[in-house]
Amino acid sequence: MENTWPDSAGRLVDGGHVLPVRIYFEDTDFSGVVYHGSFIRFMERGRSDFVRLLGVGHTALDKGEHGERLAFAVRRIHADFFKPGRIDDLLEVHTAAEEMAGARLVLRQSVRRGDTVLVDARVTIVLITPEGRARRIPDAVRDRFQAAG
Amino acid sequence: MENTWPDSAGRLVDGGHVLPVRIYFEDTDFSGVVYHGSFIRFMERGRSDFVRLLGVGHTALDKGEHGERLAFAVRRIHADFFKPGRIDDLLEVHTAAEEMAGARLVLRQSVRRGDTVLVDARVTIVLITPEGRARRIPDAVRDRFQAAG
Amino acid sequence: MENTWPDSAGRLVDGGHVLPVRIYFEDTDFSGVVYHGSFIRFMERGRSDFVRLLGVGHTALDKGEHGERLAFAVRRIHADFFKPGRIDDLLEVHTAAEEMAGARLVLRQSVRRGDTVLVDARVTIVLITPEGRARRIPDAVRDRFQAAG
Amino acid sequence: MENTWPDSAGRLVDGGHVLPVRIYFEDTDFSGVVYHGSFIRFMERGRSDFVRLLGVGHTALDKGEHGERLAFAVRRIHADFFKPGRIDDLLEVHTAAEEMAGARLVLRQSVRRGDTVLVDARVTIVLITPEGRARRIPDAVRDRFQAAG
Repeated sequence: MENTWPDSAGRLVDGGHVLPVRIYFEDTDFSGVVYHGSFIRFMERGRSDFVRLLGVGHTALDKGEHGERLAFAVRRIHADFFKPGRIDDLLEVHTAAEEMAGARLVLRQSVRRGDTVLVDARVTIVLITPEGRARRIPDAVRDRFQAAG
Repeated sequence: MENTWPDSAGRLVDGGHVLPVRIYFEDTDFSGVVYHGSFIRFMERGRSDFVRLLGVGHTALDKGEHGERLAFAVRRIHADFFKPGRIDDLLEVHTAAEEMAGARLVLRQSVRRGDTVLVDARVTIVLITPEGRARRIPDAVRDRFQAAG
Repeated sequence: MENTWPDSAGRLVDGGHVLPVRIYFEDTDFSGVVYHGSFIRFMERGRSDFVRLLGVGHTALDKGEHGERLAFAVRRIHADFFKPGRIDDLLEVHTAAEEMAGARLVLRQSVRRGDTVLVDARVTIVLITPEGRARRIPDAVRDRFQAAG
Repeated sequence: MENTWPDSAGRLVDGGHVLPVRIYFEDTDFSGVVYHGSFIRFMERGRSDFVRLLGVGHTALDKGEHGERLAFAVRRIHADFFKPGRIDDLLEVHTAAEEMAGARLVLRQSVRRGDTVLVDARVTIVLITPEGRARRIPDAVRDRFQAAG
């Protein structure tokens, strides 16, 4: 099915990844614009599809294909909300790897409407076991991020 | 903490269960009222707290305390949406067991503002293993539902 | 931006509309599969993009471009949940108009993984004013649905 | 109905506000714990109920009861995620006003299980008109926050 729907995981671009995100009823609130928490979800979609296109799927991590059962967990979010998004908008989530050390990966992300930045964020994720123990990012994963950077 | 917050799982009432639900930004959409999908979430909260007060927690089911690892899954929802909910509303989810047979439990649920019914639904849930196999509702669980009816 | 991302509103197909939907963390729950309420959201995405490709955007309706301020509201959902969805899945939402009368439109929708139907539903929506009064579906909108059927 | 359900908006405490939050299926993800975006929603609930108990409801703001139509919007979130939350947990959202200047209010928030801090955050909100223009926080509102601090 992946071939039937081109760009269904966004696109790798020079220095990172871009994912289109459509605004539906579920993403808005009674104030008439996008609920701030929806942007937090959109950025997670961008991160997931970035690592997917790098060949590091959640399913594979969860099945232990990188040594033991692993999952990415969010440790820190610093986000600035500059402009509102609106129903029917087709926004883009831009994601780039900024720093990698041990179990930790820092990403710079923004949500944009054309050239306008609606939200700008720095997100720290760590690789952990089901018991919550941090694990060094495997070299294979690390290499792919660095090649994408 | 449970004692500190009375009614934090709603209340068992004659014939079923009632749970208060506050409407926040997250529950509304740009049309100015509660998003229809939010009512689906509220009814799940009502079911969860109903079984919690009957002594059948999700955690206990998941840990196999009723024989093997089990979880409730939704099989069917028939819902009528009559009236809108609004920001700041304090609604109530009413839940009653209507029918029980084998692995299957049919619940009648409504979401109300005072005496006004906003949503009326019939929801069928089944008890399944992690592999998705249906399992007869244990007698202990069955007895508690029947006593609550 | 619409041109940059082909299929960003799915595709009109013979008899209706198809929209790809990716499963992210936000769509799943602790039982390991897709939360049933997420399917309710996916079907709304399918309906929104179906009417979008028919030329009936929420924004245009809300601005009164079809006579007065209007919005679609959900009146009834009958949904059967057959199979679980999983993280990383690329599902499809299939939508077809089944019946149209006055203010009311009945749609048949399913969520599928390849040829497997995970969820099958019949959803009734009505066109209403901001005050909640039902309005006859405008002929222009009606004609487009019928041409798509 | 408010009287029927004590604590339905949490409680004002010395220096701020506390709100109990139950963890349901909808709040968790396939990794088995609470989805990070759910904590963002919980903190908004805490802020809403804090201002509600201070007598500053969203409905009143939206109706212009403080001079013109107003709403709180989130401008910045700095959040650290320390520990996972789990299904059936009864957590608490703690909120305190930290700084107020012009249109801007900075809140310190945490989500806790008993004495354990799961998430710690600093959230900046601003008071805006429907057109997105910042407005000085009315003295009446300001006074209530300061009295609560």
